[in-house]
Amino acid sequence: MALAAELDKQAKGPAKSGLEPLTALVAEDLQAVNRLIVEHMQSPVALIPQLASHIVAAGGKRLRPMLTLASAKLCNYEGERHLGLAACVEFIHTATLLHDDVVDASDLRRGLATANAVWGNKPSVLVGDFLFSRSFQLMVADGSLDVLRILSNASAVIAEGEVLQLMTANDTSSDEAAYMQVIEAKTAALFAAACRIGAVVAERPVAEEEALERFGSGFGIAFQLVDDVLDYSALQADLGKAVGDDFRDGKITLPVVLAIQRVDEAERAFWRRCMEDQDHHDGDLEQAIEYLQRHGALDEAMARARGYADSARQALDGFADGPAKSALLQVVEFCVDREY
Amino acid sequence: MALAAELDKQAKGPAKSGLEPLTALVAEDLQAVNRLIVEHMQSPVALIPQLASHIVAAGGKRLRPMLTLASAKLCNYEGERHLGLAACVEFIHTATLLHDDVVDASDLRRGLATANAVWGNKPSVLVGDFLFSRSFQLMVADGSLDVLRILSNASAVIAEGEVLQLMTANDTSSDEAAYMQVIEAKTAALFAAACRIGAVVAERPVAEEEALERFGSGFGIAFQLVDDVLDYSALQADLGKAVGDDFRDGKITLPVVLAIQRVDEAERAFWRRCMEDQDHHDGDLEQAIEYLQRHGALDEAMARARGYADSARQALDGFADGPAKSALLQVVEFCVDREY
Repeated sequence: MALAAELDKQAKGPAKSGLEPLTALVAEDLQAVNRLIVEHMQSPVALIPQLASHIVAAGGKRLRPMLTLASAKLCNYEGERHLGLAACVEFIHTATLLHDDVVDASDLRRGLATANAVWGNKPSVLVGDFLFSRSFQLMVADGSLDVLRILSNASAVIAEGEVLQLMTANDTSSDEAAYMQVIEAKTAALFAAACRIGAVVAERPVAEEEALERFGSGFGIAFQLVDDVLDYSALQADLGKAVGDDFRDGKITLPVVLAIQRVDEAERAFWRRCMEDQDHHDGDLEQAIEYLQRHGALDEAMARARGYADSARQALDGFADGPAKSALLQVVEFCVDREY
Repeated sequence: MALAAELDKQAKGPAKSGLEPLTALVAEDLQAVNRLIVEHMQSPVALIPQLASHIVAAGGKRLRPMLTLASAKLCNYEGERHLGLAACVEFIHTATLLHDDVVDASDLRRGLATANAVWGNKPSVLVGDFLFSRSFQLMVADGSLDVLRILSNASAVIAEGEVLQLMTANDTSSDEAAYMQVIEAKTAALFAAACRIGAVVAERPVAEEEALERFGSGFGIAFQLVDDVLDYSALQADLGKAVGDDFRDGKITLPVVLAIQRVDEAERAFWRRCMEDQDHHDGDLEQAIEYLQRHGALDEAMARARGYADSARQALDGFADGPAKSALLQVVEFCVDREY
């Protein structure tokens, strides 16, 4: 269980951050989730736990399973079902990351070599399928058709969002509506599902399920908007991925959509060359950042993120104050204030 | 619904074959399944139905969903749940094919360009994920945790088998046990699950579920053994894939395992060069076939297939005679007698 201990250590995160109340709130539960994750990624086929532990360790701070754990606490849930379901949520996320990195041909994730960079695309595709199946096995063991419905719907929506992202990549005529559709599907759907199942296990009224879903959805959208802004502004070492990844991949994120709306023909030609023709020269990223700043595109995207963060926080109005609510409110604040 | 009509036409199959009793038995149900398949592959993201209909049309004769339909009939099931679940089985199979073709870098499937050859690997990976998720959504709509358990277990086993196949590829020291483990997982598990759920929807005793599972498993193993023999012997036009695909990919199938056990050092060097070094010269495939025939490896693999086919047929002993049982017995016979 050396990996579980390593995951526990990682989850403690930076000494001082807005994540702290959340990680403190769910610390004990998250250790149990980490043990479940390690236990259920085992297989007699040795490459599966090898590759799975690599991506699970590289996957970050367990934000999504922590949302399930904290939502369950917010609903005063006293049982243990939230632990296995938090592991399900993380497995779905991990499977998605494995396939994403293959699709994007990424070499780095959070400063570590991606699984596809280490083992190649083939095992990444297949181990992703395994983790996805494992997630459904865990849900079946839990036995709630409501949870199965919520997470199978989220999975289908995620896949749709990923395909849509692929179709709009490299297309500078792609608009804000298409961008929002992509991030609602590829990111917000799982945040929303992760939160909602906290209310489901606690057997709370549907109105509370829906409030938690709205919280997760608003938070997920804000989170992805900030991520896409940071791709043009974060410090590489902190983000753990190279600034400019989206630019190099030709992903049409909101800052780019907003900038292209406001430019003259010369600038439009620049964006077409970089995003559509994928013809990159030295200094292009710096030029892109300069354009984005000049048109206020990064600031405006951040303002949208704050709007979604506000609506996420408002979704919790009906819940009683306490450490769980406070931790969830603060993690949203942290997300829009972070610089990495 | 032009695609559904096309699928119905395909499913009628060759004018005279051992498949005929099965296709006649389930003809009406299969039309309903084809309509469900087309209906549930729809998505506002246009590329999804485009790519999905390509692979569904290229996927063949709907053998696996037909097994669900015929098993339900064998159990005197009178409802409609078997239709949606047969579609689930086909979606899982189709998702697996999409990912398989990416992993194998295949250009042809049954004589048609593969989805990855037409659209590239990226959408094939993501649409596979979508179909897999869709399959679980359909199972949730059906509402049986038993079915969800059977098919989520099968999915995890399939993924394990695919990873194991990848690990044993190009390894001439890989043995018969490893080969059997691969085909039991990647092929027989879904045949077994497809049959078992016929008994589940009919609410038959567990002993009948298990008998149908044994039938499907034995049939699946026989089917894959014959497929692997045909890769060294079928007529290319009939098989719809190039003879020698496994050889060129360095897949260590049973004929190769059996031949390598019986060869001298010179022949072993040949197999190492072809399978491990992937260093292929003109005439190698013919040489390989000559070795396999000289050592009786193809005949012995066929004899094993017949053994598994016999045990599959015996698994149905406890069921009453009638058109469903007769069709299932004949499709097994067809499988081991086919030359394509």
